[in-house]
Amino acid sequence: MTTLWLIVACGALAILYGIWATMSVLSADQGTARMQEISAAVREGAQAYLRRQYTTIGIVGVVIFVIIGVTLGWLVALGFAVGAILSGVAGFIGMNVSVRANVRTAQAATKSLAGGLDIAFKAGAITGMLVAGLALLGVTIYFGFLTGTRGLAPDNRTVIDAIVALGFGASLISIFARLGGGIFTKGADVGGDMVGKVEAGIPEDDPRNPATIADNVGDNVGDCAGMAADLFETYAVTTVATMVLAAIFFKGTALLLPMMILPLAIGGVCIITSIIGTFFVKLPASQSIMGALYRGLIVTGILSLIGIAGVIAYALPQGFATALTSEGKTYTGMTLFLCGVVGLVVTGLIIWITEYYTGTDYRPVKSIAQASVTGHGTNVIQGLAVSMEATALPALVIIAGILVTYSLAGLFGIAIAVTTMLALAGMIVALDAFGPVTDNAGGIAEMAGLPKEVRKSTDALDAVGNTTKAITKGYAIGSAGLGALVLFAAYNQDLDYFTKTGAGYFQGVTLDFSLKNPYVVVGLLFGGLLPYLFAAFGMTAVGRAAQSIVEEVRRQFREDPGIMKGTSKPNYSRAVDLLTKSAIKEMIIPSLLPVLSPIVCYFVIYLVAGGGAAGKSAGFSALGAMLLGVIVTGLFVAISMTSGGGAWDNAKKYIEDGHFGGKGSDAHKAAVTGDTVGDPYKDTAGPAVNPMIKITNIVALLLLAILAH
Amino acid sequence: MTTLWLIVACGALAILYGIWATMSVLSADQGTARMQEISAAVREGAQAYLRRQYTTIGIVGVVIFVIIGVTLGWLVALGFAVGAILSGVAGFIGMNVSVRANVRTAQAATKSLAGGLDIAFKAGAITGMLVAGLALLGVTIYFGFLTGTRGLAPDNRTVIDAIVALGFGASLISIFARLGGGIFTKGADVGGDMVGKVEAGIPEDDPRNPATIADNVGDNVGDCAGMAADLFETYAVTTVATMVLAAIFFKGTALLLPMMILPLAIGGVCIITSIIGTFFVKLPASQSIMGALYRGLIVTGILSLIGIAGVIAYALPQGFATALTSEGKTYTGMTLFLCGVVGLVVTGLIIWITEYYTGTDYRPVKSIAQASVTGHGTNVIQGLAVSMEATALPALVIIAGILVTYSLAGLFGIAIAVTTMLALAGMIVALDAFGPVTDNAGGIAEMAGLPKEVRKSTDALDAVGNTTKAITKGYAIGSAGLGALVLFAAYNQDLDYFTKTGAGYFQGVTLDFSLKNPYVVVGLLFGGLLPYLFAAFGMTAVGRAAQSIVEEVRRQFREDPGIMKGTSKPNYSRAVDLLTKSAIKEMIIPSLLPVLSPIVCYFVIYLVAGGGAAGKSAGFSALGAMLLGVIVTGLFVAISMTSGGGAWDNAKKYIEDGHFGGKGSDAHKAAVTGDTVGDPYKDTAGPAVNPMIKITNIVALLLLAILAH
Repeated sequence: MTTLWLIVACGALAILYGIWATMSVLSADQGTARMQEISAAVREGAQAYLRRQYTTIGIVGVVIFVIIGVTLGWLVALGFAVGAILSGVAGFIGMNVSVRANVRTAQAATKSLAGGLDIAFKAGAITGMLVAGLALLGVTIYFGFLTGTRGLAPDNRTVIDAIVALGFGASLISIFARLGGGIFTKGADVGGDMVGKVEAGIPEDDPRNPATIADNVGDNVGDCAGMAADLFETYAVTTVATMVLAAIFFKGTALLLPMMILPLAIGGVCIITSIIGTFFVKLPASQSIMGALYRGLIVTGILSLIGIAGVIAYALPQGFATALTSEGKTYTGMTLFLCGVVGLVVTGLIIWITEYYTGTDYRPVKSIAQASVTGHGTNVIQGLAVSMEATALPALVIIAGILVTYSLAGLFGIAIAVTTMLALAGMIVALDAFGPVTDNAGGIAEMAGLPKEVRKSTDALDAVGNTTKAITKGYAIGSAGLGALVLFAAYNQDLDYFTKTGAGYFQGVTLDFSLKNPYVVVGLLFGGLLPYLFAAFGMTAVGRAAQSIVEEVRRQFREDPGIMKGTSKPNYSRAVDLLTKSAIKEMIIPSLLPVLSPIVCYFVIYLVAGGGAAGKSAGFSALGAMLLGVIVTGLFVAISMTSGGGAWDNAKKYIEDGHFGGKGSDAHKAAVTGDTVGDPYKDTAGPAVNPMIKITNIVALLLLAILAH
Repeated sequence: MTTLWLIVACGALAILYGIWATMSVLSADQGTARMQEISAAVREGAQAYLRRQYTTIGIVGVVIFVIIGVTLGWLVALGFAVGAILSGVAGFIGMNVSVRANVRTAQAATKSLAGGLDIAFKAGAITGMLVAGLALLGVTIYFGFLTGTRGLAPDNRTVIDAIVALGFGASLISIFARLGGGIFTKGADVGGDMVGKVEAGIPEDDPRNPATIADNVGDNVGDCAGMAADLFETYAVTTVATMVLAAIFFKGTALLLPMMILPLAIGGVCIITSIIGTFFVKLPASQSIMGALYRGLIVTGILSLIGIAGVIAYALPQGFATALTSEGKTYTGMTLFLCGVVGLVVTGLIIWITEYYTGTDYRPVKSIAQASVTGHGTNVIQGLAVSMEATALPALVIIAGILVTYSLAGLFGIAIAVTTMLALAGMIVALDAFGPVTDNAGGIAEMAGLPKEVRKSTDALDAVGNTTKAITKGYAIGSAGLGALVLFAAYNQDLDYFTKTGAGYFQGVTLDFSLKNPYVVVGLLFGGLLPYLFAAFGMTAVGRAAQSIVEEVRRQFREDPGIMKGTSKPNYSRAVDLLTKSAIKEMIIPSLLPVLSPIVCYFVIYLVAGGGAAGKSAGFSALGAMLLGVIVTGLFVAISMTSGGGAWDNAKKYIEDGHFGGKGSDAHKAAVTGDTVGDPYKDTAGPAVNPMIKITNIVALLLLAILAH
């Protein structure tokens, strides 16, 4: 229990860091009245959107809360509520800091690049630490409450169900936030760019464009709040899945509690190392922003290695020498440390590969820029080719990670590696969340008519933000893929457990997960189609939202010629309202797809196979295969979308930097088309596949619990 | 043996039909001297390309022939040669008819639409009947030679290995032809359109465009010869896989030979029904071309039902009442007939779904056209959304097909259903291969300056050709998905057989195909990445080829201003040469990916798992999973690409028909971009995934045979 308190202390430290950094950001200069006016408009739009989004999610959440409460008991339902509420809180606070930091970053950038970086990064770090801190606190305190205050055994079904439900709560918020926010931000971005940049020929963030405030609102609700909810979910769900595996593998041994606490302890120590890392993000003499960020990340990585070694030495009874056995494999604490090292190496490799595929210094982005010279078509073709190619190396890294960690310590080794990957989430989110802040700062600088040099500073920050955004997504999806495998293992182990005891619903159920079983093949195919259908919904939604924005902006230009002359002000809030309505409406059906599919899959196959024990056996086999099918295609769909989108975006930037004709050339127009296509790829459909994969897995786990109840 | 002779007679009938139809086509009027000149240029280009392609493939083929001969014996290598050569012959003859029919179709269209349809469809039917006939003859005669002349038992390993090698030969030609032809045709099409339509503002097939002959050559080498090789392969491989399953399931029973011959007999009878069907393709009073084609198809379908019933009544010892047992399941001849019916129903549903997603009358295509109004970006976004959405229903149909046929007669039921699907290949290819003929005819009409009405007739034929092309691809990939499952089952059964006998290489090997086995997970992921990487290669190759064409055309326009004025003739053959070189060069590496991957996968996992029996067990499990991984992602990648590409193409046509501003509007420009993107999707990468899936599976089967040897 002392360990649990220490972990809580680490989580609290993250919150304290958040409070300190928030005060530090808020104390900065807010700039001119015009800047504050713009910032206020963005803030109001973002808050109005988030209010409506949370109200809608709240209704769905209450329904699910009641269903869980009735079927699995109110302690479990409370876990769901904790996960959902904390996920929402992390997004809400992060967004609120972000909408206040934007204007201050713009103002600081009028003085120096270093000043701008400082505020923007601090704002990002607040979101990062809150994501990691709240997720860790939520799981730790609720687990402590159930096992300590309520006195339940750590492997009691209620405890397991409750923490799984907590993960489900986080996932549910996450998919809504990712999709809703993604549809909003990319509807605004795509629509605004197409009618502004391409048709009217005015620059991005031009105050004459009626969609420009909506675009800035979108950065906050999508790239900031949506991303925060997504990483919160990945963090919480992976931790929970590792705990569930520990509960199964170490049942009835003295190691049960230490091993269940181990993932939490790794998370705790990495919060400290992440906080230390943030202080190393300082602009070097070379003025390399990426260099500053990488320095912070590398410091965090190295300190985490030491920290995790310390955790294993302290949290396991005999430290590194602790003898462990799971699935008939024996290994030691040292082995688990090595698995953690593998997790860090996988993180490093995925970051490196993502930078290769999305950075302006390498072949892929340059090839897209080159292809733009011959037109829109070749730009898109090359972008699609890069997006598909970009899946191969991350998949191989993940494959290698699985092979190495499995050979070291079996499934639990994989779980510890993913936990370690995610323990860095605080720092990684910090790198990402500074992106929307600088993006907004640039918009404010443009709209408030600040001198060109300010825009140059914010553009430099923004360009780095593009790469870090792509990196975070690669990281989130890589870890989600591995995390989902851990969830899948938990499903298998749970099912094994239920069928071995053979009581109640599971009487006579025999599992056949062999690829020779046609129900398994059917499950794989059904699972495989889900990410495709889900991504199709997301893309369609953005297309529709963007079209409505294009028509709205065209209408405003037409009805009030003074807007383009700069003599009258466009109606910004109409665009914000339009997007709010369409994002909320469009997010619901796709979000329910992964929630309902596992249930439909199980019961349809149950009926097809003739019901009874045989039907159940077929249903559970197909459901398990479905989970893996979702992971297999989901991984490729998600990586191709996020990396491809990033590459398109930076190919445009590469041309804007003066290559292949530069801004205004035909190549640039083609590159803008590619960037537009990449927008919903990288910021709506692609990243939303990540929570989608995990929701299917976690719903399957809950379904088992409900059927067993 | 009588049955075998009857089947050979059916195959011969297909050849006779081909000869008759060829004479009928060749006797038609060749039009003006100008038309013949253009046609001759296209013919020469196509023949030159095919010569080089076959030379290159020949070199690879000889190497593989020797490897197979040395490892598995020369009878097996001869099987490989038979498959490869016949596949090449089918493509070669089809292409040669096609390049002669184009000008005659254009000439006939000057008189009437019905006349144009008649010649174009007959030309297509020649290719169709040759594909089905040669494939059937190849397998039947070689099987007859081995079991009759050489006196080997039907389930002798040499016989099995030889027919599998025959399938491999067909697959190998097919992937080269699909990719090489696809890169050529789409490089020409994309490059020509971008520089001609978009930049220079001249219509498609304008004689001033230096890429226009290359474009017409491409239709023949890609859409005709490439497609023919692809369908030949699907037909041969599926038949072979069903025979292999029969050899395993009915080993040592009196049913062995009848069941091995059954797929051949179904193929034979369906050739007759297909030939009858072609005579029902006559333009009705309503002038509906699609109506004429569907009438032929429906007649073929209904007659095939009767024919298959006859085959089962005749080829099985007790006809419909024959009692059969495989995998512990008992069923009758009647059950197999029902599986055949399911195969026909699946074909019908896939055709219907593909038409929905690619036809101009339905929501998907209209939504892309609508999205074009707001620009290039929204067009591409909506097209990608449609392409992904289009995978869901075909996947569900395939899932339903698997569930129904498996519950009827186990794996053998699935195999019979796919065999029945493919038995219709003759008719389906006829529907498809008339597309490039009419496309060429339109080009010739345009270039020869024939009256506008002629172009209108050929355009009407061409538009239908677009839909039928998409339908064939949907059918090819749907059947390939199911066919690959049959191959996968053959791999499993083979492996089971080898490990049970436990001799030689397979001593001590135990298989664990469970999804819980991490080697299976790794195999699934590795297999999953192959279609992505392969498609990326294909897209990149087309992008590069198109860029080189754009630059060549721009150069010609720049250096000789007389070309655009129409006073001097462009250098057509430069573009043809350029594309020939780049297509041949670019097709090699991606084609070898599926050949080498199974071997690499097996040996890497073998080593990672520590070698020995444990390494072999892990390797075979991972390899099996890899095969399924390729099928799972391959199915979605392929369907999304072919349906999406078809939808983009027809969205452009829909706008050209006068919707959303019609030709020359901004919406039209955006739609041209979408069409350009869709080109390599639907005609290069997408359809090539089909042979790619099967090559991995068939190489795995051969690997087993080699290791067992």
